[in-house]
Amino acid sequence: MSLFSFELDPALAADPVFDLHKQGKMAIAATVPLASRDDLSLAYTPGVARVCSAIAASPSLAHDYTWIGNTVAVVTDGSAVLGLGNIGPKAAMPVMEGKAVLFKQFGGVDAVPICLDTQDVEGIIAVVKALGPSFGGINLEDISAPRCFEIERRLDEALDIPVFHDDQHGTAIVVLAALRNAVALLGRRFADLRVVISGAGAAGVAITDTLIAAGVHGANIIVCDSQGIIHGERAGLSPVKAALAAQTNYSGRTGGIGEALIGADVLIGVSGGTIPESALSGMAPEAVIFALANPTPEVAPAIAHKYAAIVATGRSDFANQINNVLAFPGIFRGALDSRATTITSRMKVAAAEAIAQIVSDELRADLIVPSALDPRVAPAVAAAVARAAERDGVARFLPAPVAPVSPAPTGAALSGASVSG
Amino acid sequence: MSLFSFELDPALAADPVFDLHKQGKMAIAATVPLASRDDLSLAYTPGVARVCSAIAASPSLAHDYTWIGNTVAVVTDGSAVLGLGNIGPKAAMPVMEGKAVLFKQFGGVDAVPICLDTQDVEGIIAVVKALGPSFGGINLEDISAPRCFEIERRLDEALDIPVFHDDQHGTAIVVLAALRNAVALLGRRFADLRVVISGAGAAGVAITDTLIAAGVHGANIIVCDSQGIIHGERAGLSPVKAALAAQTNYSGRTGGIGEALIGADVLIGVSGGTIPESALSGMAPEAVIFALANPTPEVAPAIAHKYAAIVATGRSDFANQINNVLAFPGIFRGALDSRATTITSRMKVAAAEAIAQIVSDELRADLIVPSALDPRVAPAVAAAVARAAERDGVARFLPAPVAPVSPAPTGAALSGASVSG
Repeated sequence: MSLFSFELDPALAADPVFDLHKQGKMAIAATVPLASRDDLSLAYTPGVARVCSAIAASPSLAHDYTWIGNTVAVVTDGSAVLGLGNIGPKAAMPVMEGKAVLFKQFGGVDAVPICLDTQDVEGIIAVVKALGPSFGGINLEDISAPRCFEIERRLDEALDIPVFHDDQHGTAIVVLAALRNAVALLGRRFADLRVVISGAGAAGVAITDTLIAAGVHGANIIVCDSQGIIHGERAGLSPVKAALAAQTNYSGRTGGIGEALIGADVLIGVSGGTIPESALSGMAPEAVIFALANPTPEVAPAIAHKYAAIVATGRSDFANQINNVLAFPGIFRGALDSRATTITSRMKVAAAEAIAQIVSDELRADLIVPSALDPRVAPAVAAAVARAAERDGVARFLPAPVAPVSPAPTGAALSGASVSG
Repeated sequence: MSLFSFELDPALAADPVFDLHKQGKMAIAATVPLASRDDLSLAYTPGVARVCSAIAASPSLAHDYTWIGNTVAVVTDGSAVLGLGNIGPKAAMPVMEGKAVLFKQFGGVDAVPICLDTQDVEGIIAVVKALGPSFGGINLEDISAPRCFEIERRLDEALDIPVFHDDQHGTAIVVLAALRNAVALLGRRFADLRVVISGAGAAGVAITDTLIAAGVHGANIIVCDSQGIIHGERAGLSPVKAALAAQTNYSGRTGGIGEALIGADVLIGVSGGTIPESALSGMAPEAVIFALANPTPEVAPAIAHKYAAIVATGRSDFANQINNVLAFPGIFRGALDSRATTITSRMKVAAAEAIAQIVSDELRADLIVPSALDPRVAPAVAAAVARAAERDGVARFLPAPVAPVSPAPTGAALSGASVSG
């Protein structure tokens, strides 16, 4: 009955990507029968009134008798979409739909894409607060820094459901998982690592916090932005970058990426820029390079391998793909199943450890993270996150005995999860 | 993987309604393959970036290449849910989910339930305006009067997508359809009808407007609320009721429902109260009584039949069920397929005529409206609404040749529609 196909631009319609995206990538499906009058009287009036009254009397029943307990809102303002920048809410929808279907595919989570027609911090906070009762969690997506930091912090304080900015924490969690396996493979210790992070946006800030929480010394971390090394003496630092300067680079090193990398064991690129080969020559032996910019890594893998023992990128066509899809479906699956009120640092670290553990028995320089398609990942992450939520006292629901990580009955677990929508 | 079943109250779990509602009534479904790396590179990064860029350059492409063009937000603040009153957003969710799955079942529309944590008029307007880019239409639901009137009017002005408060217009449209067939059956004319509307809330106000637009003389309409007949001299009228007084009851009749019904041809009950049998005795011969309160009609059908030639209720267990599901799925299907910017009065009247026409060849006193389950209704309503949108110049898209009302290839049409999500 839809008439959309009448006006497709032939040029676009011939493109496999546009062909796939015709009329979007997702739909609503009823999970109850609606064929007979009796069906309607149970699912709608008059029967539904009894369920409403029960929830009004005991609001937590909404988790049992509505879809809220299995849902996440994927919320953006379209201000920092992929590498495309501020393309606005409508143009951001294909990414949010993609995220939503990955939530379902890997975590059995029912995710609803919400693209907001405001980029005002107070406006975004007010809207998402008002949406709170409709969802079991909020995944913030592609919201530009530094606005994203305040928006996440204040929403997490205001709402009793998890609020998670994936561009920050999803990336940091998968980076931590990959780095754990890299240092294990190289026989190193976090406490000894000298780390350079190229990029001081949402991902760079979250990676810095996460690595320090995981045992890397702030003294040994140097963060660079487009103007070079961030240090306490640099003029005109934003509050966020001033905080980075205070957490890192205790020796106050100055200069550009080349100076930053002298003696560095680890380079993590989350800048979207490019790093010249000359800058890599100063790195320590047996170095680790994660060049995560998409589609063009800061360092081409062929170049990176000349200076590093272990190389990872964000791309699926090279080994060691660092992809957030390893984290967010399992993190929200675990947060929803434990009815967590928030996502704590320990839940994030537990997620990273679960991701790393999946391949810990088969570690190789070209296998430090599981495949983005590995069905064992989300259930293992979910179980670890739910346990950590319980340990941290933020779980409102006792998780069931967890599935072993490997070999995992993941088909059953995932289909069970998806049925729960 | 979901753990909800662990804490179900056995008493509730044994109830078929609660059993059906376990974990809700709907889910998200991906409509694209996500099994391989190639699948992900088309549906997500890097491929999705091309779709985003195309929409950024030409925003109307969002209707072709995202699910927006097939979606409706079902928005409530939980302030007037069924007959339960102000039970708040979480307790309203089962009704909004029920509405959403009926949208899908009958109209192939992907509807997302949104229960807002604010009952402030300005707050609701600001939130729904911000949600605008994410949806192809807004169905307001169970928002109390008189707030619902301003909220709908201002959102319809602010947004370029249809905004439709179903408690007002859905009810009025089905009432108009039923009344058209009732007067046809009785050989009467709208212009001659004396109509009493018991109830001056969202439905009563909309029914008054719609009947006047359809040719009933305002002079011959009397509206009653809990204090009796609304007339210009009555003290303390709200702005909305003062407007009703100005539109109706030109003779300034006063008193209660009994006085109102003297000589009346039609009684439409949308009050939720009860009307004593004694009040009915003054009605004209061959009267029509629509007692629409649920679950308890203002007049029991057995009593109504003693005074009326044609009786309708809101219940599925009596003949002539006046149910909004006859209207809203087809109205939004037609509005979405024509990409209407708003829903005009003529689109509403066209919907009513299409509903009435479905049974026009088989009219009987106990068959003045189609069954709520009749699959011919939504496609016929959709086609009529899309044509009216085009006539009124609010369509942004030329509807395809419309399906005949009867016999209709509705199975194909509906499944086609549901695929379009």
